[in-house]
Amino acid sequence: MSATTPSSVRIVEVGPRDGLQNEAKPVATEDKFTFVRLLAEAGVREIELTSFVRPDAIPQLADAAALAERVRAHGFSDAVRLSALVPNMRGLEAALAAGIPEVAVFLATSDRFSERNIRATVEESFTRIAPVIAHALQSGLRVRGYLSTVYGCPYEGKVEPQKVLRLSERLLEMGVYEVSLGDTTGIATPGQVEAVLGLLLAIIPAHRLAGHFHDTRGMALANILTAWKMGITTFDASAGGLGGCPYATGASGNVATEEVVALLESLGAPTGISLPKLVEASAFMLDRLGRESPSKLHRVLASTAAAH
Amino acid sequence: MSATTPSSVRIVEVGPRDGLQNEAKPVATEDKFTFVRLLAEAGVREIELTSFVRPDAIPQLADAAALAERVRAHGFSDAVRLSALVPNMRGLEAALAAGIPEVAVFLATSDRFSERNIRATVEESFTRIAPVIAHALQSGLRVRGYLSTVYGCPYEGKVEPQKVLRLSERLLEMGVYEVSLGDTTGIATPGQVEAVLGLLLAIIPAHRLAGHFHDTRGMALANILTAWKMGITTFDASAGGLGGCPYATGASGNVATEEVVALLESLGAPTGISLPKLVEASAFMLDRLGRESPSKLHRVLASTAAAH
Repeated sequence: MSATTPSSVRIVEVGPRDGLQNEAKPVATEDKFTFVRLLAEAGVREIELTSFVRPDAIPQLADAAALAERVRAHGFSDAVRLSALVPNMRGLEAALAAGIPEVAVFLATSDRFSERNIRATVEESFTRIAPVIAHALQSGLRVRGYLSTVYGCPYEGKVEPQKVLRLSERLLEMGVYEVSLGDTTGIATPGQVEAVLGLLLAIIPAHRLAGHFHDTRGMALANILTAWKMGITTFDASAGGLGGCPYATGASGNVATEEVVALLESLGAPTGISLPKLVEASAFMLDRLGRESPSKLHRVLASTAAAH
Repeated sequence: MSATTPSSVRIVEVGPRDGLQNEAKPVATEDKFTFVRLLAEAGVREIELTSFVRPDAIPQLADAAALAERVRAHGFSDAVRLSALVPNMRGLEAALAAGIPEVAVFLATSDRFSERNIRATVEESFTRIAPVIAHALQSGLRVRGYLSTVYGCPYEGKVEPQKVLRLSERLLEMGVYEVSLGDTTGIATPGQVEAVLGLLLAIIPAHRLAGHFHDTRGMALANILTAWKMGITTFDASAGGLGGCPYATGASGNVATEEVVALLESLGAPTGISLPKLVEASAFMLDRLGRESPSKLHRVLASTAAAH
């Protein structure tokens, strides 16, 4: 393994959205705001704030507009980029009304997962998001694309890397600036990451791809290390390891931002994030949720901090 | 990261010794035997059975001779290599009497850790183990060397890689066939592994070194992946992630054998170990201990198995 020369490294914090959308009871908007503020103070520069979805679909995020308003009233440094997931045109309109400068659209690789998740096949999803992407771009927004179940589908099993490549290319052609490749159920292994990214990176420049790994099976960091060594420099993560996928059995566990920071910093890549402050931000939200972090690193750092 | 060509890969199972020596109450000898038998049936080929220490020092392992006798009475395939840790000449004599074909000796990189752990400085440790190694070799045993706190000492902090190199070379010159480099408190990062192994591998052949990582901070698999990519092919692991270091605060968590198997198999390296059977072996001992595994992969696989 050759030494890596750090260039740009980006960590996209998805805790406020992906981390909280699966919680049994909604979190108070003011607590979400404090969480986001603490994340920004820790040096996190990209934060996915919420998702503009139907309140009855994901009641946990029903306060999307209120949270965006609270954040706007506070005013963040221009250095912090905020974004929101939008499932359809109505969501985009709401995001535009809320003044969100970046939106993300969502696509899965398999029809069965897609149908259970958003009640649309993959092709129907394209039909649905095409005008969303176009309108967002016309409105001056940046658009990010999520492609989930990249390393396997809980219902259909194996996913062909060629299919991942085709879907990623179509998203990029539609104008998303980057495709975040989701290991939605945390089943990817380093060998698989080498195979899938090996294929994709022969065609797609590395800076157009991001890694979105879940730590369901404890493989997230090894997968991220593998992707990093192959040239991927953008990773999604969730502070404290909050969250999961509500539609996939056993799919708890976004990789903890703490772990990604520790990994990349150890390899000489400056993330700009203060680990102690990040732990504080995570601990704040974990405390509100009454939960223990699934991240060993978070737990060790939080207990060390508490001892001082 | 280039594709790895698997050659030989060795997993040294330390669960019966390192995994159990820190348990509050001793485990019945017959349960330890069953654990070892299940591990062997899962395809584990190297098992550190116990440690021949003073019963008052580590009462958990006071049945070392009885366990060895039980194992000998059962008779294992020649394909399974059994070993035991011996801290001194008395331990070696006991191991010889028990018919153990391989012993391991122990050394730390820092005086303060060493003094707290085995009441001897590093130099005093050398004085103590030199005749042990010599006598073991004369008696036809294979001797393995553990070097602990390689990536940092909980009391002295940073450990110079040059010191790790010197100590490893001295151990090898004394006749150990391999030095297992211990991240005793689980503080190593991939960047550190690159730095330390980069130095060592310029002098010492890769097949003379093994990686012994703890998952205290969730970094074990990323560290193992890093070491593997640098040419290390032998890793210590503990079934189910049992165990830790009784002398170092917060040093719980050998990396789970399940995770090492999944990682290396994903990279095309055949371990010869059946993951479902390994999970059974771990689950047996975890059940006896009334514990949950700290390994996410073990928990997912065990719950999947239970659902069928």
